[in-house]
Amino acid sequence: MLPYKNLLVIDKKSNIAVFKQIAIQLIRLIQEGKLLPGTELPSTRSLAFDLDLHRKTIVAAYEALVSEDWIDNLPRKGFIVSPNLPVVRPRSYNNGRIATYEADPGFGFDEFAGFTYPVSLSRKADIVVDDGFPDISLIPANAMLGEYRKALDYSSLKKLNSGWELEGAAEFRNALCNFLNQTRGIDIKVENLLTTRGAQMAIYVAASLIIKPGDKVIVSDPSYFFANMLFESLGAELIRVPVDSHGMDTEKVEEILKKHDIKLIYVIPHHHHPTTVTMSLERRNHLLKLIKEYRFAVIEDDYDYDFQFQYEPYLPLASGDHEGNIIYIGSLTKVLGTPFRLGYLVASAKFVQAAARKRMLIDLRGDVFTEKVVSELIKNGELTRLIQKANKVYRQRCYLLTDLLSSQLSESIKFTRPNGGMALWLEFNKNLELTKIIEKASSKGLKIMGSVYNQGNNSDYNAVRFGFASLNEEELMKAVDILKNSIYK
Amino acid sequence: MLPYKNLLVIDKKSNIAVFKQIAIQLIRLIQEGKLLPGTELPSTRSLAFDLDLHRKTIVAAYEALVSEDWIDNLPRKGFIVSPNLPVVRPRSYNNGRIATYEADPGFGFDEFAGFTYPVSLSRKADIVVDDGFPDISLIPANAMLGEYRKALDYSSLKKLNSGWELEGAAEFRNALCNFLNQTRGIDIKVENLLTTRGAQMAIYVAASLIIKPGDKVIVSDPSYFFANMLFESLGAELIRVPVDSHGMDTEKVEEILKKHDIKLIYVIPHHHHPTTVTMSLERRNHLLKLIKEYRFAVIEDDYDYDFQFQYEPYLPLASGDHEGNIIYIGSLTKVLGTPFRLGYLVASAKFVQAAARKRMLIDLRGDVFTEKVVSELIKNGELTRLIQKANKVYRQRCYLLTDLLSSQLSESIKFTRPNGGMALWLEFNKNLELTKIIEKASSKGLKIMGSVYNQGNNSDYNAVRFGFASLNEEELMKAVDILKNSIYK
Repeated sequence: MLPYKNLLVIDKKSNIAVFKQIAIQLIRLIQEGKLLPGTELPSTRSLAFDLDLHRKTIVAAYEALVSEDWIDNLPRKGFIVSPNLPVVRPRSYNNGRIATYEADPGFGFDEFAGFTYPVSLSRKADIVVDDGFPDISLIPANAMLGEYRKALDYSSLKKLNSGWELEGAAEFRNALCNFLNQTRGIDIKVENLLTTRGAQMAIYVAASLIIKPGDKVIVSDPSYFFANMLFESLGAELIRVPVDSHGMDTEKVEEILKKHDIKLIYVIPHHHHPTTVTMSLERRNHLLKLIKEYRFAVIEDDYDYDFQFQYEPYLPLASGDHEGNIIYIGSLTKVLGTPFRLGYLVASAKFVQAAARKRMLIDLRGDVFTEKVVSELIKNGELTRLIQKANKVYRQRCYLLTDLLSSQLSESIKFTRPNGGMALWLEFNKNLELTKIIEKASSKGLKIMGSVYNQGNNSDYNAVRFGFASLNEEELMKAVDILKNSIYK
Repeated sequence: MLPYKNLLVIDKKSNIAVFKQIAIQLIRLIQEGKLLPGTELPSTRSLAFDLDLHRKTIVAAYEALVSEDWIDNLPRKGFIVSPNLPVVRPRSYNNGRIATYEADPGFGFDEFAGFTYPVSLSRKADIVVDDGFPDISLIPANAMLGEYRKALDYSSLKKLNSGWELEGAAEFRNALCNFLNQTRGIDIKVENLLTTRGAQMAIYVAASLIIKPGDKVIVSDPSYFFANMLFESLGAELIRVPVDSHGMDTEKVEEILKKHDIKLIYVIPHHHHPTTVTMSLERRNHLLKLIKEYRFAVIEDDYDYDFQFQYEPYLPLASGDHEGNIIYIGSLTKVLGTPFRLGYLVASAKFVQAAARKRMLIDLRGDVFTEKVVSELIKNGELTRLIQKANKVYRQRCYLLTDLLSSQLSESIKFTRPNGGMALWLEFNKNLELTKIIEKASSKGLKIMGSVYNQGNNSDYNAVRFGFASLNEEELMKAVDILKNSIYK
């Protein structure tokens, strides 16, 4: 038996709990080879006596070690050092001190302290209303598992392990390029395409190449808050242009262009975030005319273009004549669900090259494994079938929800049924206290986690995004019921 | 039959090939509903006659359409519009113009024109020597497939679809936190941990919070080129400190600290990239002393700590007493292989919060799906077993390669056997032309794709990183053979 009384030193003034001090020192003894695998440890009673501590403290220390696999608790033998220890037996060169990260660092850094956003993150309730997420139960899980199996084959893994293309895996870019050319009325080559970890990264990369501190950027009012936050973090001055039922007001945009030097316009022409408005034909053509006249950069965020409930939706702005000035951004995450984050950026080859370089510094080589799996889903038609199926389901849900709201809540809530997408924009009467309604609904089992616009810059709106795509009919009916009770009772 | 002669307009002056113009216009007719699913198309001969074009041009157009699934070629019927068309039949509002991205954009952007790096990307050869990648054949592919199957279960997917934590999925962070505490001699909580898409993103996020334009940053000379590029792209002024057989020269660091205001030191204490040197005990303690004295930020890039060939390796600097000033960065990609990109950053809670916010603007929510799979591999011990197995294999390969090089090429190549990691640093005699040797080897079937240091800033070195981990014994013997022939013949 080792002289534990001497080996284990307790510092009662330390802000590390005593049981943890014991656990850490025992780990060190194991790591240093002083306690070999299989060694029996003293009983909790005897060690407590030796160290003049309460037995419960020793029990807590041993339990922590058991949970981390350092020691085992054997039925009759008691505690022994685990025969299966971690790989590395590292050598400490810094005697006695235990490294913790409890102190604040002594160097200065950007704390991003102004970081706020109108979405709640944790979500536990009977019914959770999100910001507009897909229904994950629709994905072809079996087909996907089959593709994961193939991707995990040695020959596939070997190829993925050694391949490396700056702009994303060639196979995925080819498949995606065909898919985009077929569905978006554009005619791009793979050199016009960069794949990213999601639309957010595509916006980040594009904006960070374009925006220099002090640059003026036009955004809609309201607009996608993470994009606004990003542009501001890059030093942009935001100029906000109202959105009405035809989309961003391009007459206002023209007025601003006449007066200011504008570097970038960020626009969401389909199912605008948060208002779900689709930009009209006239405004689209007007904006294209302005692009050619003033030659600013445009980020067209077309995050849920694939979800259109009309027979003949508009094509993206990027399919128009913009002389290469539109950076078109989209996402497969809205199709496959949030666990699968893949996005893309379409632009002139020269811009894509620069973006690929920037992305390499951020992310080195992207997610070649998921890209492989999704390539196959595009090529064998699973992705298109999923989009078709989801459109049918989401349209039904959208119509059901809007019918329910019209018949039961039209006095309190105003909205326009969107022609696609996954969410409604519900504007509550000004006299209703949205925060209280959301709290009340939450207490009744309905968590509204979509973007809430009723504070700070957004205090004029009293509105919320209400995702319908991920809720089934029963849930939608129950949700409206609870909402009604939360407003009127 | 439609009046194709009038509907299809060919512009011979356009820089879009004629066959492509036809294909695009046929797609438009299909999208506009003028050519319905199942419609027979004119034969290639008759359409060629109508349009006054060569038949081969029409064949090319039809073949393009077949390859994109717009039309089918039926055995006796000829070409018909496919009965299975893409989901969306979009409405163009921009008559006649075909959107292409062939023009350079009219707005200014950062082209990252100075972007160069010493690694080649494409790789096709009998034997490919990489920069130090793991052997992908060692991963527990079956166990991983099992975890992918579980992760694709509806209940798991639903949880992943709606969960969202800024710093990464809690389950993964908990598992990783335990793993790091067990193997790195640190005592962190989950609040000290941010998960990222790979070590590169962790470096990016940390550096971009710390570095402001004009800040001075100490790096080793040579150092990891992507980190250098990143720091410079953030506006840092790099101050280079030599690396010798004991690691970065901390005496030089102290001299610089006395004269300059240093914001950040980037250091790779284990198996330094590119030189594979491990920093000595004395230098480690000296650096820790300097950190406390001058209170600068340190990024400790410990990308392959898990691969140690000695019984008692050093612990990371982060396990020492640094008052929260070390940002510790690591990667699971070096364990699992490049297709699986997961990295992490360990720092004080305050820094982790800022980093999580920054990461959200870049990447929104990380790769929760892969994180779920890898959590299970950590918890069920597969990750630890993989590390143990890989260490055994890589050590053998390292010893074999160094033995071969010592016995056959000691006159031309100098190196020190590293005490871990996945690569050797081969310094060629100054009179040997490294570029020529690499070309010659390539023509003999040996592609050396690791970092080559013999140009520009690095012209003093005449050295290359030679990854041994991913090559089996036969390949290593063949590689040395070809290398020998490329030097002496």
